[in-house]
Amino acid sequence: MKTLQIKMLVLLAIAAFSAVSVQARPSREYYSGAKYVFLFIGDGMSMAQIHGVEAYLEAEYAAGLDKKDPNKLLPVRPVGAAKLVMTQFPVMGLCTTYDYGSFITDSASAGTALASGKKTLSGVINMSPDFTTQYTSVAEMAKKAGKKIGIITSVSLDHATPASFYAHQNSRSNMYEIGIELANSGFDYFAGGGFVSPTSKKDPNAMTVFDALAANGYTYVDTKAGFEGLTPASGKVVAVNPVLDSSKALPYEIDRKNDEASNISLAEFTRKGIEMIYDAANSYGFFMMVEGGKIDWANHANDARSALDDTLAFDDAIAQAVAFYNEHPNDTLILVTADHDCGGMSLGWAGTAYDNRFDLLNGQTVSYLTFDDQIETYRSGYLDPNGVYTGPADIDEQMKSLILAGFGMDMSTLSLAQNQTIETAFDITMAGQKGDSLLYGGYNPLSVTLTHVLNNNAGIAYTSYAHTGIPVPVMALGKDSYQFEGYYDNTDIAKKMAGVMRLILMN
Amino acid sequence: MKTLQIKMLVLLAIAAFSAVSVQARPSREYYSGAKYVFLFIGDGMSMAQIHGVEAYLEAEYAAGLDKKDPNKLLPVRPVGAAKLVMTQFPVMGLCTTYDYGSFITDSASAGTALASGKKTLSGVINMSPDFTTQYTSVAEMAKKAGKKIGIITSVSLDHATPASFYAHQNSRSNMYEIGIELANSGFDYFAGGGFVSPTSKKDPNAMTVFDALAANGYTYVDTKAGFEGLTPASGKVVAVNPVLDSSKALPYEIDRKNDEASNISLAEFTRKGIEMIYDAANSYGFFMMVEGGKIDWANHANDARSALDDTLAFDDAIAQAVAFYNEHPNDTLILVTADHDCGGMSLGWAGTAYDNRFDLLNGQTVSYLTFDDQIETYRSGYLDPNGVYTGPADIDEQMKSLILAGFGMDMSTLSLAQNQTIETAFDITMAGQKGDSLLYGGYNPLSVTLTHVLNNNAGIAYTSYAHTGIPVPVMALGKDSYQFEGYYDNTDIAKKMAGVMRLILMN
Repeated sequence: MKTLQIKMLVLLAIAAFSAVSVQARPSREYYSGAKYVFLFIGDGMSMAQIHGVEAYLEAEYAAGLDKKDPNKLLPVRPVGAAKLVMTQFPVMGLCTTYDYGSFITDSASAGTALASGKKTLSGVINMSPDFTTQYTSVAEMAKKAGKKIGIITSVSLDHATPASFYAHQNSRSNMYEIGIELANSGFDYFAGGGFVSPTSKKDPNAMTVFDALAANGYTYVDTKAGFEGLTPASGKVVAVNPVLDSSKALPYEIDRKNDEASNISLAEFTRKGIEMIYDAANSYGFFMMVEGGKIDWANHANDARSALDDTLAFDDAIAQAVAFYNEHPNDTLILVTADHDCGGMSLGWAGTAYDNRFDLLNGQTVSYLTFDDQIETYRSGYLDPNGVYTGPADIDEQMKSLILAGFGMDMSTLSLAQNQTIETAFDITMAGQKGDSLLYGGYNPLSVTLTHVLNNNAGIAYTSYAHTGIPVPVMALGKDSYQFEGYYDNTDIAKKMAGVMRLILMN
Repeated sequence: MKTLQIKMLVLLAIAAFSAVSVQARPSREYYSGAKYVFLFIGDGMSMAQIHGVEAYLEAEYAAGLDKKDPNKLLPVRPVGAAKLVMTQFPVMGLCTTYDYGSFITDSASAGTALASGKKTLSGVINMSPDFTTQYTSVAEMAKKAGKKIGIITSVSLDHATPASFYAHQNSRSNMYEIGIELANSGFDYFAGGGFVSPTSKKDPNAMTVFDALAANGYTYVDTKAGFEGLTPASGKVVAVNPVLDSSKALPYEIDRKNDEASNISLAEFTRKGIEMIYDAANSYGFFMMVEGGKIDWANHANDARSALDDTLAFDDAIAQAVAFYNEHPNDTLILVTADHDCGGMSLGWAGTAYDNRFDLLNGQTVSYLTFDDQIETYRSGYLDPNGVYTGPADIDEQMKSLILAGFGMDMSTLSLAQNQTIETAFDITMAGQKGDSLLYGGYNPLSVTLTHVLNNNAGIAYTSYAHTGIPVPVMALGKDSYQFEGYYDNTDIAKKMAGVMRLILMN
């Protein structure tokens, strides 16, 4: 009896001490870090684009409400209550984006900060400001530690943001050298756009980037059938969208949706990438970076609707990672952030004051870039043998039809001032001129004016054709996500991310 | 021997079980909630103003850096690394601000959301959209629960934001009725601006707000000596700044700093408020709301420098609460947020692209409002008996001197286009006209043009003279601050804040 009592007490004491011990010392799981880490970078994306999409998705309610009519007071959902996948993440931080030499960063120094935790000069990728020290990215460290690596982008694979995870160059313009670094990286899955400079400009006898990829055992696919046939057995892969623009980037999302049959979406590249680099037998897991690169380009051009659509495409890619997270919630961290704001978009304009008409954005059916082509086709029909425009002096019915089809704007419903602004831009464009840089930012004067008018009527405005210095959000879900709370610097993201993988960034 | 062993084991088991028990059930302290709760509302303040101040404080570095000169590469601190008090808070959230009828809220519906957790229509204070139900604010509930209450603002005490914590009106314009509700609130400390409508417009025999205050036992002070003489023994207090503008608000901070002797700062009102409502013997603690109301007004006028200075004054007030927090860290929650963005300010402009010159803002010495007065003085010297302007047709040396003194801008150093823009605004202003609403927003055309030019040269731009729909940050420090992580709605702030005080908002 007494012996039994003692035994029971001993067992109880051991059990209780174990509980205390667990409380005092974190578990083995805690020390092991996150097995699967996703970093989503919305290039040039800030809260304006994120909440702008949410508002746009709710546009029917915003437009349909009559404030003073009590019969119309109850929308199906509250105005603006739509949520993206990324904005449902439990942890929100904000981070500063200034670089070593400028309050307003570019994508190279911002990419270096996010990938390697170091401040450098605009235009520089993973090199110190004096070009003497090479920085090692968190992706390179993760690779060495046994993780598989995926790099996905909607722009070219040798562009500054993806390059920051595998390349080290004094200038982001060294795109051939960046491509060669890609081929030598040993990373497992590259996908999205193509290569801007696959051949060396300095040495015509140098191997091409494609040669280097083959020499390093990469499978290169640029067809839809080739993409769909990829399996984990394909080994290291470079998968490029069948349709690329002149910058070797994916089409804008608004244009891709007009030709889904020919294109692979950012979400599809992401889902395939997870399939390719996930290996239940690899205890080290993977690191994946996905860039929504054309959010930035649309903002540069002040094309709000295209920026919102690309933000939505980016969110769809995030949803693929969340599906994976739901299968591996204890081992996975998903981070979503931006490298910087672009364009200074705001969700309010002097002319619309407290009102918005986000529903008007539904009228836009193509990106400014596609519309540029339509304008050029129109204009080229009126060029004389000397290249001089001889067509209509004023906007004619044909151009009005193009504007209606492209932007949903019937010019007869626009204000006199807006008609005059568009007419002036038409004249400059037909004359083959660039016009005022403040008004047109170097873009096609007619296209950019049409997006400005549509933006403004919707209650949206831009202040710049360049990046801005406004802090960008950081959204985190999963393992160790609490580390991303608060207000910090973009270099801290790389450091925290390394810490989550139980790595410490050096140099 | 065996008995001793058993006794030891029993004691060990009890001790161990106690530890487990603590782990399983939160402490009494956990259940008791936050004793001291501060809510700081930067009216019309978003990340642009917050990070704009940080950039402005670092302006000497931003301006002094030469990117390409290696000898100048190392600033004393990294560019943009200055931190405000509020941005050092460990928890950051972002919240949406749409109201019941509009994507872009006003301060009344936003105040109702923050104070009572309910969506209502723009212009409405703590009443349902159909005006049938009265909402109870978290401050009223805290008062009933035994807490002392302080309400501080840099605008008038009957303005929408402070009113949302004690009043219930179908319209924010019912400022007399709001003043009477203030007098009947039983709240302990009101401080800042004055009363816009102390007398009833409907009933000339009705008691004034001042009568009501006296009838309810309030001490009213509007001198600096009176303010400084206040002690907790003074009882319930209304403390008003000796200097008020025509809207019964405090001067803009940039103007206050030119006359510190006559004015009481928002920080001083806050520090005194803490002294007045802190009572070590009151186990229920206090709730204090502090509004930086003129950040909004400066943004409406697109006066960036004044908005930044008022943001800094707001941060100085927050510092007072942090000093209190450091004495009572386990019992105190400090929240900092905004009711909405205003003006769509961005930290980048088309004309400056990737460069900023925040140091140029140092040249501004007065608010647009003070400069309006200087313009009016100039103009009134040239009015004929019929009120027609007969002065110089072009900007003369005297006006150039005013512009140099007020905004630090030597017109001979500005571009031709900027000179023409300013000249046009001068002509319209001297003619006594308002001019184009898009260009001038109903403000003095010359003043607002000068702020636009200075903003732009500094690399700052606005898109609107109204509020915008961009989400605003929420920064939290202290007790239960983790609750304010993530992305949520402004109504959630009231609900969470009530929860932190262990109250549940009803109606």
